[in-house]
Amino acid sequence: MALFFKICYNYIVFLAIYQANKFMKILQLAPLWIPVPPYTYGGTELVISWLSDELIKRGHEVTLLASGDSETSAKLIPIWQKSLWRAHLSAPHAVLSLMYEKLFEIQEEFDIIHDHCEWYTSPYSKFLKPPIVTTLHHPLTEEATILYKKFPNVNFIAISKNQRKQGPGINIVKTIYHGLPIERYPFNPKPEDYLLWLSKITPQKGLAEAIEVAKIAGERLIISGIIPEEYQDYFEYRLKPLIDGEQIQFVGASDFEKKVSLFQGAKALLYPIRRPEPFGLVVIEAMACGTPVIAYKEGSMPELIKDGKTGFLVNNKEEMANALKRISQINRLTCHRHVVKKFTVEKMVNKYEALYNKLIKKYKKNAKKT
Amino acid sequence: MALFFKICYNYIVFLAIYQANKFMKILQLAPLWIPVPPYTYGGTELVISWLSDELIKRGHEVTLLASGDSETSAKLIPIWQKSLWRAHLSAPHAVLSLMYEKLFEIQEEFDIIHDHCEWYTSPYSKFLKPPIVTTLHHPLTEEATILYKKFPNVNFIAISKNQRKQGPGINIVKTIYHGLPIERYPFNPKPEDYLLWLSKITPQKGLAEAIEVAKIAGERLIISGIIPEEYQDYFEYRLKPLIDGEQIQFVGASDFEKKVSLFQGAKALLYPIRRPEPFGLVVIEAMACGTPVIAYKEGSMPELIKDGKTGFLVNNKEEMANALKRISQINRLTCHRHVVKKFTVEKMVNKYEALYNKLIKKYKKNAKKT
Repeated sequence: MALFFKICYNYIVFLAIYQANKFMKILQLAPLWIPVPPYTYGGTELVISWLSDELIKRGHEVTLLASGDSETSAKLIPIWQKSLWRAHLSAPHAVLSLMYEKLFEIQEEFDIIHDHCEWYTSPYSKFLKPPIVTTLHHPLTEEATILYKKFPNVNFIAISKNQRKQGPGINIVKTIYHGLPIERYPFNPKPEDYLLWLSKITPQKGLAEAIEVAKIAGERLIISGIIPEEYQDYFEYRLKPLIDGEQIQFVGASDFEKKVSLFQGAKALLYPIRRPEPFGLVVIEAMACGTPVIAYKEGSMPELIKDGKTGFLVNNKEEMANALKRISQINRLTCHRHVVKKFTVEKMVNKYEALYNKLIKKYKKNAKKT
Repeated sequence: MALFFKICYNYIVFLAIYQANKFMKILQLAPLWIPVPPYTYGGTELVISWLSDELIKRGHEVTLLASGDSETSAKLIPIWQKSLWRAHLSAPHAVLSLMYEKLFEIQEEFDIIHDHCEWYTSPYSKFLKPPIVTTLHHPLTEEATILYKKFPNVNFIAISKNQRKQGPGINIVKTIYHGLPIERYPFNPKPEDYLLWLSKITPQKGLAEAIEVAKIAGERLIISGIIPEEYQDYFEYRLKPLIDGEQIQFVGASDFEKKVSLFQGAKALLYPIRRPEPFGLVVIEAMACGTPVIAYKEGSMPELIKDGKTGFLVNNKEEMANALKRISQINRLTCHRHVVKKFTVEKMVNKYEALYNKLIKKYKKNAKKT
């Protein structure tokens, strides 16, 4: 009976979408540094992968310009066999230029171009015919802000309200939160006895602080993440002496399955990042599994975490360690439901789909006039 | 009397140039990573600086798109206050995009665009109106070669015959050797008792091998060069233990004056680089001061060094150490004269100037037809 209702529901959703949104030919432009989806680290590439899959599920034709080691249900146009972080070329930007050369060859086959390469794409945008949407995956630094202001023809998307506030003068047409496929993050009501830190290991990402917090609180901490080549020594000399393999344990980089299982088992995710994150995908991934997040009250964090309900927003290490004492007050189901309500891939794609449609209509209307 | 002839000569040269080449408005597009000219390391930026100065001396109007810490007799359009290696931005490529945005704003003011940014510029070239010349300052890697083949509209310049051979299928219209202002490299007939290694300190540049050669030969070696951030540890752990401060001495990076004085004093420059160099500016700089160069018989080296006359071409470290025994056979004046004959800035600019003229004429002719 439940199955019957589910089928009916899906059919109605399908019909509604079909009515509202016509079939579109969509080009996704992915950064070439990491495959889509990533083997381990890569929030942007994960989001591009989910976005493409969901658009295809809804009947659209999606083409993906990406590295050849990507795996996607979209039509993949591989620009280089290996993603650039793995390829170790001496002129990787020549490959990015190959992508733009390809873009100009094929652009007119598409109704809309969705760009995820930001600053690389901006000056090319003036020579594109279909409307262009650029999602701002990175923090709005001074140099990026100056650049983007010069391109009112690009429809920029902020990924949090906080990010949008950083960019007055940029043609940000909408804020669209990232969303994840909730069925791939099974809820776990009963965690094990450890804290988790999971990200790319760079000085900005606050791993040293997370270790200190765990030590102050006397808790076990599991660390997972890739170490970029340029930070091998930072890891070796700054962090390794702090990792005893017992209380503080490093388990290397995690693929998707290992990552989800780490989220599921964690009592809490520590996220002591000082850089104002435009979003923070790992935060909603953890909450989806039921794991509360303790983060600094910066950037987009107050938009993702309901303080006292799905985690805690704190100001420093001491407060973070203190918050851990109250972690049992958090209902893990509340964390999960919060993501279901606000951060699913369906919600994200509803917004992108509506935006694409609106822009295409406007474009066609203008084309008729001229 | 000599002065009178010199004035007459200059006047005749000026008239001849004036007849042959009309006044041109030239845009030079410099990479933004290093100022023009460089504070220390930067062959490309040094050549751009000399090229611009000489073109201006000949009456042309030269505009330079470069970093704001550049100093030039050209009209400087600064794209970012600091050059990008010094600016430590998190999105330096946004600044490169600002350069291309500016390029499209001003391109029609120029008769010709001379690009030195290679792979960054290629896809933009299709949207430029004036003819474009791109000097290939870097080795032709696989990714660069694939890219450049797609742009027959760009007039590529090889900087050695050997480099030109690496790029079949690329529209290389001419080989133009780099040239230097000989008066800035005073000839020194009597060197001191040391060998010199001078370059950017990276694993590719053969410093470890140069040290070994000096030790085998029992000679003193002076090392000068910048250490890029990503190779600080390579220097610290691989090289520093080999540097005793007596026989093997590291003197840090050199500005122009210090560099020239190091060349002047050296018995020989060691250049044991395994990567096929497209040119190797340091080789002609050393020879200009009278200093012979001992290099591996690779890349452009046989075009720059006359084996047995201005240095030695060898196959390995042992041969390099052996060649040092014969260094007194080299006449330092022959080295200097070799540069005067083949590698002066005047010779280089004669070729570029003639090429610009030819391309502009062709462009105007085609424009009339259409």
